[in-house]
Amino acid sequence: MGVDKPNDQIPPLLAAASGKPPSRIPVWFMRQAGRSLPEYRQVRAGIPMLTACLTPDLAAEITCQPVRRHDVDGAVFFSDIVTPMKLADIEVSIEPGVGPVFAEPANSPAAIRHLTSHEITDMEPIRTAVKHVVGELGEATPVIGFAGAPFTLAAYLVEGRPSRDHLAARALMHTDPDSWDKLMTWTSALSTAFLLTQIEAGARVVQLFDSWVGSLSAEDYRDYVAPYSTRILTTVAERHPDIARIHFGTNTTHLLPAMAAAGASVMGIDHRLRLDQANALLGGTYPLQGNIDPALLFAGKALYAHTDQVLRAGRAAPGHIVNLGHGVPPTTDPQVLTDLVAYIHAQSPRDEEAQ
Amino acid sequence: MGVDKPNDQIPPLLAAASGKPPSRIPVWFMRQAGRSLPEYRQVRAGIPMLTACLTPDLAAEITCQPVRRHDVDGAVFFSDIVTPMKLADIEVSIEPGVGPVFAEPANSPAAIRHLTSHEITDMEPIRTAVKHVVGELGEATPVIGFAGAPFTLAAYLVEGRPSRDHLAARALMHTDPDSWDKLMTWTSALSTAFLLTQIEAGARVVQLFDSWVGSLSAEDYRDYVAPYSTRILTTVAERHPDIARIHFGTNTTHLLPAMAAAGASVMGIDHRLRLDQANALLGGTYPLQGNIDPALLFAGKALYAHTDQVLRAGRAAPGHIVNLGHGVPPTTDPQVLTDLVAYIHAQSPRDEEAQ
Repeated sequence: MGVDKPNDQIPPLLAAASGKPPSRIPVWFMRQAGRSLPEYRQVRAGIPMLTACLTPDLAAEITCQPVRRHDVDGAVFFSDIVTPMKLADIEVSIEPGVGPVFAEPANSPAAIRHLTSHEITDMEPIRTAVKHVVGELGEATPVIGFAGAPFTLAAYLVEGRPSRDHLAARALMHTDPDSWDKLMTWTSALSTAFLLTQIEAGARVVQLFDSWVGSLSAEDYRDYVAPYSTRILTTVAERHPDIARIHFGTNTTHLLPAMAAAGASVMGIDHRLRLDQANALLGGTYPLQGNIDPALLFAGKALYAHTDQVLRAGRAAPGHIVNLGHGVPPTTDPQVLTDLVAYIHAQSPRDEEAQ
Repeated sequence: MGVDKPNDQIPPLLAAASGKPPSRIPVWFMRQAGRSLPEYRQVRAGIPMLTACLTPDLAAEITCQPVRRHDVDGAVFFSDIVTPMKLADIEVSIEPGVGPVFAEPANSPAAIRHLTSHEITDMEPIRTAVKHVVGELGEATPVIGFAGAPFTLAAYLVEGRPSRDHLAARALMHTDPDSWDKLMTWTSALSTAFLLTQIEAGARVVQLFDSWVGSLSAEDYRDYVAPYSTRILTTVAERHPDIARIHFGTNTTHLLPAMAAAGASVMGIDHRLRLDQANALLGGTYPLQGNIDPALLFAGKALYAHTDQVLRAGRAAPGHIVNLGHGVPPTTDPQVLTDLVAYIHAQSPRDEEAQ
């Protein structure tokens, strides 16, 4: 064996996230704990999404399901990006087939003042659930903490519900920068507290999801969004310097360097951009996560040739955590995911040319 | 006056599209003929979208409405990307708030064989409508012909309706390349015929809309999509070399050079990427169209500072046609558009530093 001997003491996900050679190629899937699994649909039957998120035994069970079934290398905490808002007594529900719907859109200075007067009084359901998961999975499979980034949260809050182009939020940052600052400061504080709670309960990696950030121009991202995401990631880094910070969005080719500079230690890449190209855009300095195209989960054997390409491109980066380019589609056959994990684990984690 | 004297004989849109100095900065808006206008809502009342598209007097009237109201420099033909399918006797309707819905999704080899056996028998409603518009507007305001690109059409056809990530279409290209080829060849032929009819009836510019192309990786675009878009654009170029060919999609930062190489003469850019950066990605060789952020239409005075930035960035390109980065949102106050056109026309079309 060479000098870069894989460290069997470190879980592969943590090794890759810190640029060390992993004992096997680590893989997990965004939205792996969810509707693609029959055991998930069974335990969720009749239980509203946010109730499930705030029932510690149930949230812990759902978090562990994909680890048991697929042998993935990380257990992303089962929750929702609006969970901290629910904990702050905001009236919000997740409507099936729609997404988060807020009783009162934050679309005026008064509505934003009212919204941002809410505080989280009790993180107990989160702390308890994460501890249950850590208790079940032990050291081998790290828990991945999870929070929504301020822009994506604001995009929902200002509109009051999902929207295609997030026009209302993107107009507000220009028309009323003071209200925008108040809103983004508040969402940042909630997501920071949400992440810190998960870390203190045992999460060993975190991911900040900015799913809709790709609708912004690079200039608007820099001026109105990056400062708030930076607060979250730098606070986590200061308090817990050993915890890897994955930063992810979709449609981010034009934003990648700015998103990395916001305080990420690992960059999540969607399926649109090859990992070697993403690595070049980022100056070769960040371990990358991604980026199997979710569409290929429905493409039979073609999934494997595509996965080979992803693994090959990922070798360009200082570390590679395999994931999809976006969440697991609910209609995915779970056996496809189980087989995919086994296939990835059967590949050598070392670059063959370097051996 | 310098050597690059603006040519008052050429409509500003055509001058900018061919890299000549225009007599004023040309501007039009995608979806300018539509729900933002009260006169549109009035004439459309009770009439289904595709019926309106196929009623020549009505389609012509709607096409002219924004020219009369806003003094825009081009009249984009009022139609829908699925109009050619309706003309080929495919069962499709535009459902309000949803989009195109097909009675039979093209999701199997048999369904695709059946679909692609349909042909357009009569383009008369299109020809007549465009001729009416040309008759009303004369030489001063060119008609912009319009068609959907094969991928965006296929994304609707395979799913049978709008979808967020176009998973079914993006899987099909990998699982059944033969059916995919058949489908893309057919949509290309329909869109080509649709554009040629508009040109032969008097359209002097065309735009190929690939709205959803941004969901593809650069590799899938190159292998499964570009060849078909290229057929359309090169056929137009061969038959009508003087007609400018605008190629537009959203979320295309990773695809711009490939989309240009498909046979565009002008590239449309969405609001995410600054025009000077787009120009650099394209090697400085294409006149550009874009890219005022539609969100800024709701941002009061901030729209003007943003427009100044767009105009400044656009001076980097060999020509600039001002447009939005995407279609006019239906809730836009039409007065905002009228005022914006007047503001743009009041700016000097020449680079002041160059004078």
